[in-house]
Amino acid sequence: MDVKETLFMNGGEVESTYAQHPGFTQKLTSITKHILVNAVHSLFSEDFHRKKVLNVADLGCAAGPNTFSFILTVKESLERKCKELNCQPPELQFYLSDLPGNDFNSLFKDLSRVGEDQKSDVLLPCFVMGAPGSFYGRLFPRSMLHLVHSSYSVHWLSQVPKGLTSKEGLPLNKGKIYISKTSPPVVAAAYLAQFKEDFTLFLKSRAEEMVQNGRMVLILNGRQASDPWCQESCYHWEILAGAISEMVSQGLVDEEKLDSFNVPYYTPLQEEVQDIVDKEGSFAVEHLETSTLAIVDNQESDTRAKGEELAKNIRCFTESIISYQFGKEITEKVYHKLTQIVVKDLANRSPTSTAVVVVLSRTTG
Amino acid sequence: MDVKETLFMNGGEVESTYAQHPGFTQKLTSITKHILVNAVHSLFSEDFHRKKVLNVADLGCAAGPNTFSFILTVKESLERKCKELNCQPPELQFYLSDLPGNDFNSLFKDLSRVGEDQKSDVLLPCFVMGAPGSFYGRLFPRSMLHLVHSSYSVHWLSQVPKGLTSKEGLPLNKGKIYISKTSPPVVAAAYLAQFKEDFTLFLKSRAEEMVQNGRMVLILNGRQASDPWCQESCYHWEILAGAISEMVSQGLVDEEKLDSFNVPYYTPLQEEVQDIVDKEGSFAVEHLETSTLAIVDNQESDTRAKGEELAKNIRCFTESIISYQFGKEITEKVYHKLTQIVVKDLANRSPTSTAVVVVLSRTTG
Repeated sequence: MDVKETLFMNGGEVESTYAQHPGFTQKLTSITKHILVNAVHSLFSEDFHRKKVLNVADLGCAAGPNTFSFILTVKESLERKCKELNCQPPELQFYLSDLPGNDFNSLFKDLSRVGEDQKSDVLLPCFVMGAPGSFYGRLFPRSMLHLVHSSYSVHWLSQVPKGLTSKEGLPLNKGKIYISKTSPPVVAAAYLAQFKEDFTLFLKSRAEEMVQNGRMVLILNGRQASDPWCQESCYHWEILAGAISEMVSQGLVDEEKLDSFNVPYYTPLQEEVQDIVDKEGSFAVEHLETSTLAIVDNQESDTRAKGEELAKNIRCFTESIISYQFGKEITEKVYHKLTQIVVKDLANRSPTSTAVVVVLSRTTG
Repeated sequence: MDVKETLFMNGGEVESTYAQHPGFTQKLTSITKHILVNAVHSLFSEDFHRKKVLNVADLGCAAGPNTFSFILTVKESLERKCKELNCQPPELQFYLSDLPGNDFNSLFKDLSRVGEDQKSDVLLPCFVMGAPGSFYGRLFPRSMLHLVHSSYSVHWLSQVPKGLTSKEGLPLNKGKIYISKTSPPVVAAAYLAQFKEDFTLFLKSRAEEMVQNGRMVLILNGRQASDPWCQESCYHWEILAGAISEMVSQGLVDEEKLDSFNVPYYTPLQEEVQDIVDKEGSFAVEHLETSTLAIVDNQESDTRAKGEELAKNIRCFTESIISYQFGKEITEKVYHKLTQIVVKDLANRSPTSTAVVVVLSRTTG
């Protein structure tokens, strides 16, 4: 599977789009907003507000609405601080980046509407570009970016980890699609190794693109428990594997297809993130925290409604790879089954998800 | 009609896409290539090759393939010149801009394929972004662009000219959709006034975005004859008006809808372009020429094939506004009729089109 070609959040005119069901990530955006605001303020201590232009990138922007919240937060906190300091604000250039398969058309159309709505109280000129490409490699010219942000994207790996088949070519993670309690230890090791390789490449690429003392705010799906098969880390993959297994039992999907499939995704511990940053060496950790949140709205008492919403949310970010592996014709059935499993499951427990939030500063030249 | 919302070249999965039928503009790209190469070379006399990054914009990029030819020409001529001078080439940042309704998804997907094909012989790092927005206003931060290019776009006006109805609100350009031999003189005057206003705004916006001594290459659909209703200037609009008139005769389109419709397009004389540049005052004209070319392939003897190709080409860049004004349900019939008219017409004459090519240098600070 070529991740660059197959991975994208649902956009356009399909039923479950990321823009309609941003779910958990939207909640997270509001909870981590103060961290982003602090990072914007720290640009002032570097005198970046005296530049003509501040270059800001959002990596893994999808097609909104979280990227719009991001733009708004940066813009507002910059304007407010400039007013406080009574200084002329710089012009702001936003680069919204995602893989070339992302729905940039919807993003740009919605963006022009967001722009229209806000024209009246715009203080500082703000330009928005789209930057198609993989963040596992260079996306921007050298020494250009002052602030980089990526929310819920860097846990996507550049490829399915190597080493998930035996020497004889047999699948090692049978019946599962991510690290699971029943997976042999080599599976978790292969995932961690791939994450180390990818996250190091991510940091090296950003190190070249960022100016000295530029700031980077990363929010990843991670975990607090040391076991990589903990619920907070694997919930949606376990449930999705369950739904696909059901298709296998019904003879609708070849068992081999399930056995040989694994997702390009890893949920790290904050210690693993810290360790890779330290070893790579271009950044200093300014802030690192882990937050665990319920992934459904516990105010909502209707389990069916909660379950359906969660299932739609899971569908948004998994459908492109599931439909690539198992075929478009089976996708509807998989997510129908997934919805049933989720609704039933929510009657018994309230699943959580964990975010690792890290703020980095570009330290060496 | 809001031009920003309704104007785009056909992209995506419709039948006649601009990528498949770039027609005349592709021929023009090869004929004007040496002018672009010269403009790239002139960047060296300004010492821009010593910058870390060269910022280049293509305005009105549509969804290819002309924008790919543009990227390739700039890249190759820059690399060649750097080799000659034995200097380290700068990194290249391309901004491909068009209205938010443009098919950026197709553009980015094709771009990633073009990138893959060429990876082996890439000498200088080259980054490509999409910049959605109207060029009648700011698209980029201040003093950023070293080279600006726009091919066959700046003849599109920001709006249908004001003053095309009488004081009593009656349409002044009945039965036509652009300046025609039978139009009253006030119509041509209204079109020229709108072009002056728009092109001035275009120059003012670019003046803010470009660095001192930056170069701009503009290729517009224009004319050599002083009469604005000459064939080279009006060919496709006359034929399209004829096809719509036929729909009126058949009772398929209200006469009023045709009478009140005019296209946001103007084909200037090179003297008009020179005059506006001089009056605006931010740019010096380095080169100005007018070229007239046959718009069909005269090597091809099959008039039907030629006519069908030309009709598809006209459809690519007119369908979005025609279908907005007259309704999607009538569009197929309009272009069917248009094809018949074009095929018949080509038996009697070989229509031409004229391009005004101007190279400008950003002169004042």
